[in-house]
Amino acid sequence: MFESAEIGHAIDKETYEAEVPALREALLEAQYELKQQARFPVIILINGIEGAGKGETVKLLNEWMDPRLIEVRTFDQQTDEELAHPPAWRYWRQLPAKGRMGVFFGNWYSQMLQGRVHGRFKDPVLDQAIHAADRLEQMLCDEGALIFKFWFHLSKKQMKARLDSLKDDPLHSWRISPLDWQQTRTYDRFVRFGERVLRRTSREYAPWHVIEGFDPCYRSLAVGRILLEGLQQALQVRTESLHQAMAPIGDSIDRRSLLGSLDMSVRLDKADYQHQLIEEQARLAHLMRHKAMRRHALVAVFEGNDAAGKGGAIRRVAAALDPRQYHIVPVAAPSEDERAQPYLWRFWRQVPALGKFTVFDRSWYGRVLVERVEGFCSEADWMRAYSEINDFEEQLHDAGIVVVKFWLAIDEQTQLERFQEREQIPFKRFKITEEDWRNRDKWPLYRDAVGDMVDRTSTEVAPWTLVEANDKRWARVKVLRTLNEALEAAFKRDKKHRKGH
Amino acid sequence: MFESAEIGHAIDKETYEAEVPALREALLEAQYELKQQARFPVIILINGIEGAGKGETVKLLNEWMDPRLIEVRTFDQQTDEELAHPPAWRYWRQLPAKGRMGVFFGNWYSQMLQGRVHGRFKDPVLDQAIHAADRLEQMLCDEGALIFKFWFHLSKKQMKARLDSLKDDPLHSWRISPLDWQQTRTYDRFVRFGERVLRRTSREYAPWHVIEGFDPCYRSLAVGRILLEGLQQALQVRTESLHQAMAPIGDSIDRRSLLGSLDMSVRLDKADYQHQLIEEQARLAHLMRHKAMRRHALVAVFEGNDAAGKGGAIRRVAAALDPRQYHIVPVAAPSEDERAQPYLWRFWRQVPALGKFTVFDRSWYGRVLVERVEGFCSEADWMRAYSEINDFEEQLHDAGIVVVKFWLAIDEQTQLERFQEREQIPFKRFKITEEDWRNRDKWPLYRDAVGDMVDRTSTEVAPWTLVEANDKRWARVKVLRTLNEALEAAFKRDKKHRKGH
Repeated sequence: MFESAEIGHAIDKETYEAEVPALREALLEAQYELKQQARFPVIILINGIEGAGKGETVKLLNEWMDPRLIEVRTFDQQTDEELAHPPAWRYWRQLPAKGRMGVFFGNWYSQMLQGRVHGRFKDPVLDQAIHAADRLEQMLCDEGALIFKFWFHLSKKQMKARLDSLKDDPLHSWRISPLDWQQTRTYDRFVRFGERVLRRTSREYAPWHVIEGFDPCYRSLAVGRILLEGLQQALQVRTESLHQAMAPIGDSIDRRSLLGSLDMSVRLDKADYQHQLIEEQARLAHLMRHKAMRRHALVAVFEGNDAAGKGGAIRRVAAALDPRQYHIVPVAAPSEDERAQPYLWRFWRQVPALGKFTVFDRSWYGRVLVERVEGFCSEADWMRAYSEINDFEEQLHDAGIVVVKFWLAIDEQTQLERFQEREQIPFKRFKITEEDWRNRDKWPLYRDAVGDMVDRTSTEVAPWTLVEANDKRWARVKVLRTLNEALEAAFKRDKKHRKGH
Repeated sequence: MFESAEIGHAIDKETYEAEVPALREALLEAQYELKQQARFPVIILINGIEGAGKGETVKLLNEWMDPRLIEVRTFDQQTDEELAHPPAWRYWRQLPAKGRMGVFFGNWYSQMLQGRVHGRFKDPVLDQAIHAADRLEQMLCDEGALIFKFWFHLSKKQMKARLDSLKDDPLHSWRISPLDWQQTRTYDRFVRFGERVLRRTSREYAPWHVIEGFDPCYRSLAVGRILLEGLQQALQVRTESLHQAMAPIGDSIDRRSLLGSLDMSVRLDKADYQHQLIEEQARLAHLMRHKAMRRHALVAVFEGNDAAGKGGAIRRVAAALDPRQYHIVPVAAPSEDERAQPYLWRFWRQVPALGKFTVFDRSWYGRVLVERVEGFCSEADWMRAYSEINDFEEQLHDAGIVVVKFWLAIDEQTQLERFQEREQIPFKRFKITEEDWRNRDKWPLYRDAVGDMVDRTSTEVAPWTLVEANDKRWARVKVLRTLNEALEAAFKRDKKHRKGH
């Protein structure tokens, strides 16, 4: 993988200086075109051997291009806010918006390589990290991002020579190298694990570019040309994404559906309701104050038919708690800033820190519900959303976040009655719009979309709970009970896990 | 100030229960109207005596109203990211957007009171904090925010009774009171300093409401009614701000202006330029790596005539540094999310952490330049901006941030030549638009605006530097030199300060 980057690539100064002006101009032009189109972001990942010119190249790119359109991001020590969130949160919060370039100097690859080289974990964990990076990049590319991955390489001999010369350079000596690169063993391990990482994460939509870093003229020109070519190509392509068209989801042959199999007649009488509601609320209040909550967070997703009673159910959950413990996120159409980012970005922003509870009133599932049914995104977009969402929720789960998802289901007749009631009551009239009436015509389309959604995203780490909501009392108690059971199960797993050690 | 909140206010249960349904309905209606209009945010500050029902009231408000439109924020321990920024940064990042309500439970008042009560500082520092809060709230109100400030009060006897009863309540005993309220002295000091704070910060646009907290029915109804009345009133008023019309800025009688007094003929020849540029760049690189930088950050503001060479000057500054050390913020028209916040919000987001350097390519001064000249905001808005900006920059300065502001000035003839040149060069054509040509007609208006801006915002803590920019070389060297001198002066002050102790 690195062989051709150890053969002593070099370019003479004259050739370099003759080429650079035109290259610079073309890069600038491409950069302004990128800004003008504002169709996609550019993400440049900088990795490789210490002393191979990573820093110098980033500096040069900022000189060649307009630095006002470039964001250079480093990811050193995690802040305490970052430590309280899933590992990928720190990258999501730094993503460049459409039309801009982000240089990630230190990134998910540096993290996984340092961990492995220093022996903080073994291959299986490295492979998990590789897989996560692969999935993240695929999602970013599907969302339109243009990703360049540069690996700056040096042979062992070249590296030693470079480090010796840098030692006496006051511009470099102040920086402490993160790994002890003077040791042969470090180099060997870095290259070995680097090879494994590159092999598994070089993809047609985001290939690695290995650059021999010894000769500054060669490496600068090589990087500049790769960037320019990639930029120009992407600026000419007019579709949002390269991945298109997948096999459609088959219809159920026997017309039986999960939603159809719910017993919509279940109900609670008033006395039972009040008794059980108070009991479950007290249980939730207790669980949220439990010391095990310090290692967990809670995410509750509320989806459902219009007028299924999401708001009322959420209020009963909130009533159990101190308002400082939870945060309710109402999800509507994305704002301008949110549209300039990958689809899941606005939900990553709202991921709770450990100890906290976030309620999503509608959620990322809009992608496979309203956006699918209304055609707000392409079929390819909502088709890939299922696995992107599964990835997202798995990351939440792995960080200790308990994810509970509710579909509140009512039948058509019940919805009709509630719509009519809303039109009568003054302070409820805000809740009903023309659009709600129109959506009723799409009932079969939504039913199919919900069926597919549950089939494809009800997972062990984040299962769906279908809630029979014709009777509001039944629904509210079931919601609270499900939350409680999920928290208790998570706390129990902790205990088991600790005993296992 | 607290006398009438110690007289035993109470409301009987029947009256309470008769009133609540209508109050709730009206509050909900007001809340939806607020969301619909999306004209202003509502900020509710919760302060007062421990045990006086602060938490219970916040919980109740979330039950009465739609909790999806309410954000409850607590400000406990600062995170390390917050500690690396000016103190007000943590509040700015949590401001509710227009159309939403933010409950600040724990806020600037709790911070200053706890500090003073615990003897961490004395009255002069308390008074500084009071003044800062006063200015912040005035700015927020001028920006349209509706602020409610509630002080929940108890007499000493009432408090002791409440704390005794809470002690045995499992819902409360888990929480540890931040102050040792059992001591008489704490109560006395809290009330004494609280009185000082309330006296000085009760304003017609954001008055304090002192609520006797002993009787739950009374305090709930009182808070609910105040909120409802204030909301309804604000929803009816149609102007953006209550403060309107101030004395206009007088024209200079003798027609002499600061800009007119610049010697626009100054220049550097190529050899001098190259020598001095490299020298100043090395000096900046050295200063940015100096260990004193850990206690400082650097903010550079670039304003100037169109085509004055801001971009070129910024690139020469950037070229001195490692791209990981600086961040360039190009300022254009605000996005949708930014328009839903007070004017300075989007700049607060970009304030650098300690050790970092942020370059603003155009800045908050847009308010008193383009927005004034083009009439994008009212006269009252840009008139008050001068002092808001001075407050903002003083906060940066107090947090150790060195603020350097450049106005790059060219004359009309030079601008004409540069515009014509830009139209000829392919990769510069992005830089010139119809609007640039139109702006030339407004030259005298901009000259006046710049004059007023410098007169009113060139302060000791953040002075303006006027840069003669007809000669780009001269301008670039002057910019770099000014940055260096500002940093060196700040480091020197540190030393003096330390010796003084």
